[in-house]
Amino acid sequence: MNPSDPRVVLQQRREKLAQHFCGPAILWSGSESPRNFPANRFPFRASSHFLFFAGRSLANAAIHLEAGKLTLFMDDADANDALWHGPSPRRQEIAKQMGADQDYPLSKLASWTQDVATIPVQDSATRQIQEKQIGRTLGSAKQLQGHNRQLAKAIVAVRMIHDQSAISSIREAAAVTVKAHLAGMTATYNAQTEAEIRAAMEAVIMAHNLTCAYNSIVTVQGEVLHNQSYHRPIRAGDLLLADVGAEKEGWASDVTRTWPISGSFSSTQHDIYDIVLAAHDICIAKAAPGVEFRDLHLLAALTLAEGLVSLGILKGKAETLVERDAHALFFPHGVGHLLGLDVHDMEDLGDLAGYAPGRKRCDRFGLGFLRLDRPLQKSMIVTIEPGFYQVPSLLKNPERQSHYQDCINWDQLVKFKDVQGIRIEDDILITAKGAEVLTAALPSVPSQIESYMNRCI
Amino acid sequence: MNPSDPRVVLQQRREKLAQHFCGPAILWSGSESPRNFPANRFPFRASSHFLFFAGRSLANAAIHLEAGKLTLFMDDADANDALWHGPSPRRQEIAKQMGADQDYPLSKLASWTQDVATIPVQDSATRQIQEKQIGRTLGSAKQLQGHNRQLAKAIVAVRMIHDQSAISSIREAAAVTVKAHLAGMTATYNAQTEAEIRAAMEAVIMAHNLTCAYNSIVTVQGEVLHNQSYHRPIRAGDLLLADVGAEKEGWASDVTRTWPISGSFSSTQHDIYDIVLAAHDICIAKAAPGVEFRDLHLLAALTLAEGLVSLGILKGKAETLVERDAHALFFPHGVGHLLGLDVHDMEDLGDLAGYAPGRKRCDRFGLGFLRLDRPLQKSMIVTIEPGFYQVPSLLKNPERQSHYQDCINWDQLVKFKDVQGIRIEDDILITAKGAEVLTAALPSVPSQIESYMNRCI
Ligand SMILES: [Mn+2]
Ligand SMILES: [Mn+2]
Repeated sequence: MNPSDPRVVLQQRREKLAQHFCGPAILWSGSESPRNFPANRFPFRASSHFLFFAGRSLANAAIHLEAGKLTLFMDDADANDALWHGPSPRRQEIAKQMGADQDYPLSKLASWTQDVATIPVQDSATRQIQEKQIGRTLGSAKQLQGHNRQLAKAIVAVRMIHDQSAISSIREAAAVTVKAHLAGMTATYNAQTEAEIRAAMEAVIMAHNLTCAYNSIVTVQGEVLHNQSYHRPIRAGDLLLADVGAEKEGWASDVTRTWPISGSFSSTQHDIYDIVLAAHDICIAKAAPGVEFRDLHLLAALTLAEGLVSLGILKGKAETLVERDAHALFFPHGVGHLLGLDVHDMEDLGDLAGYAPGRKRCDRFGLGFLRLDRPLQKSMIVTIEPGFYQVPSLLKNPERQSHYQDCINWDQLVKFKDVQGIRIEDDILITAKGAEVLTAALPSVPSQIESYMNRCI
Repeated sequence: MNPSDPRVVLQQRREKLAQHFCGPAILWSGSESPRNFPANRFPFRASSHFLFFAGRSLANAAIHLEAGKLTLFMDDADANDALWHGPSPRRQEIAKQMGADQDYPLSKLASWTQDVATIPVQDSATRQIQEKQIGRTLGSAKQLQGHNRQLAKAIVAVRMIHDQSAISSIREAAAVTVKAHLAGMTATYNAQTEAEIRAAMEAVIMAHNLTCAYNSIVTVQGEVLHNQSYHRPIRAGDLLLADVGAEKEGWASDVTRTWPISGSFSSTQHDIYDIVLAAHDICIAKAAPGVEFRDLHLLAALTLAEGLVSLGILKGKAETLVERDAHALFFPHGVGHLLGLDVHDMEDLGDLAGYAPGRKRCDRFGLGFLRLDRPLQKSMIVTIEPGFYQVPSLLKNPERQSHYQDCINWDQLVKFKDVQGIRIEDDILITAKGAEVLTAALPSVPSQIESYMNRCI
């Protein structure tokens, strides 16, 4: 069979799992979550762990995995279903397409659950079914114990290093994401609100029949890190921060660009942007197998600190400022994270994927939000996303103000008040010797962004 | 205070409720449902019952209603929240804006739950909290008992007859929906796939910072009633069926148009379209207070049957064909439904809203899918949506074929194979003497659709 045949891909994933985990496991796909009444539902998204091994988004299904074998459990659609949802493939056909060894209706699942390991699904309706079928409560996916934890560790090992099929899907998602961001830049000229730019960007993703990997951030208030409102008018002096990514067959991309509404960065915006871009570029240049991701984070922090010192916003020696976490006043999140079937890949498992065994989140202000602390390996995909933000809840916090009093030149900072939030985020595939930027087609240099935005005027 | 002040509107809703229900009630808003990991969530949509009385989409909140008084229970955002989500209004401020009589943190809710009536929320995570706080299991919202059922009946009475604020929101949702459909018609000329047309339509809704009231149907396979895939290429001879509606502050619109990909209906498409349009127009012309919605449904059925007889597809007398449900071979759903905060308003309560007291779903093939069986009343909003479909699971069903053998001219039907699915759906406000079409600005006559589509060529 062709190595890109989905059955071969799935077989290889199962075999890798079997190398890391002995014993049976069952993974549930989940069900559609109701929105405001049972028939009006959010679009279905299968559990990522299920999707990885099943290769197909099936609602109300489960797979049993053991020693490289796959057994599919699901029910065929009933006769009435065809009127409302059209003809559906039969379980047997689906099982064949995914290379399952056996397939059964869900009613047979009960006799397969003894001593199996599992990962709790996200939607709580299915979680209740899962716990009932498995005969015990599961607790949080972040704090698994015993063989469930062993299974989770094995899944982390397999999902973290992407196979060609995964890389190819993320590449496609990234390509559409690039188009979405270009459409956003193009739409800015005639837009009056954030919502209009968001619409132009998501329309590209939708037109390619993909979904968004996460709720888009498209805002002139980029200092609110997870801003998910879009009602604000946009004005000529504003920067727009757009964090929008497409998802292809479950595989995510995650890209941020920041551009000027007017089509031209002001000199203060340009100055800060260049610093963020320098941090972005140096992290990508240094990314390679064996490199500690935490060191990239600290490198981004140092680059930002140096730049802010050179602009007179921070005072002192950059190394010392980073040791004191002064950079985190302006860059309060981590420089990136794993990317895969989840935009923060496997974050349902807490830090099991993000943190190497034995490592834990640090409570330092400048490191606490770092989602990834591992040496990079070939075929990992990560984001690199340094930023600069003026967050009132940080900068106006009296304790932080007094703690960092000697570090900040407030009079100088005030000159940069037209720079509320900047983030530059790309998706990076770790290769044998370095890194490939999957989103390289999207301009990140100010002059390129400006000329793209102004090409039609 | 101004009668359109939200506090006045909400006060009036509470007072109306108190006229229909004595005793305390608590309504939960629900929480965000996770998509693939806890931090990656579907956009929040508050429970419609909560939204109606709270006037505001608040996650993780509850309101206590009694004798026209409102008590709000919710927690203030914690300090860290501002970094990720920006500053949030405090509970006290929200309570003031909604005209609440009192407000408390959620921890106080436990002492308010004795003997309260409630409606089960949709998301099962909140449902578990709700059942725990109320101290008993709730069962399905479709089969409430005791004082929960009394509360549901009272809510139905209040929500079914829309106030000016509700009508105004639905009107705005309908206006944006009209624009979305026009954008879909415009986009058809250059589109290659269903997905591209869907994107053009939903982009309009998103650009107005509204959401979709339901998952859009945009398909050349309109005979699949709830078709929610968009991957198909579109071809010149196809009809495109688009059932897309915007939601404004929770208030839904629900509109369907069917148009030819080429910009011109074929003569067979035109013939069938005219029949569906005749059914649509006559139902709207007859809609008025006191008219039984079921009679409108049967009038649509009769109009379709007459038309299909005139085209030689059905054989016999139209009245007899409708009595035998032969029309349902081509029109297997009801002619409309209540519209409000839910696109099928209050369908979470089963048929409590849709069916007048003492009435039940009929198991007749031609009536079983009728969602509304009540006399119309002033200030109800309903959809009128007759259709014609060639559904293989109905027309190729051997039992139905033999049962209706004498009714159908199969040789004639085969000539209409380029008419797979047509639906024409508008949103209708029942007025004192008749009905107002809230979506009247959207062309429904074939020549108007054709000239709109061809205006730029
Ligand atoms: Mn990211
Ligand atoms: Mn409808």
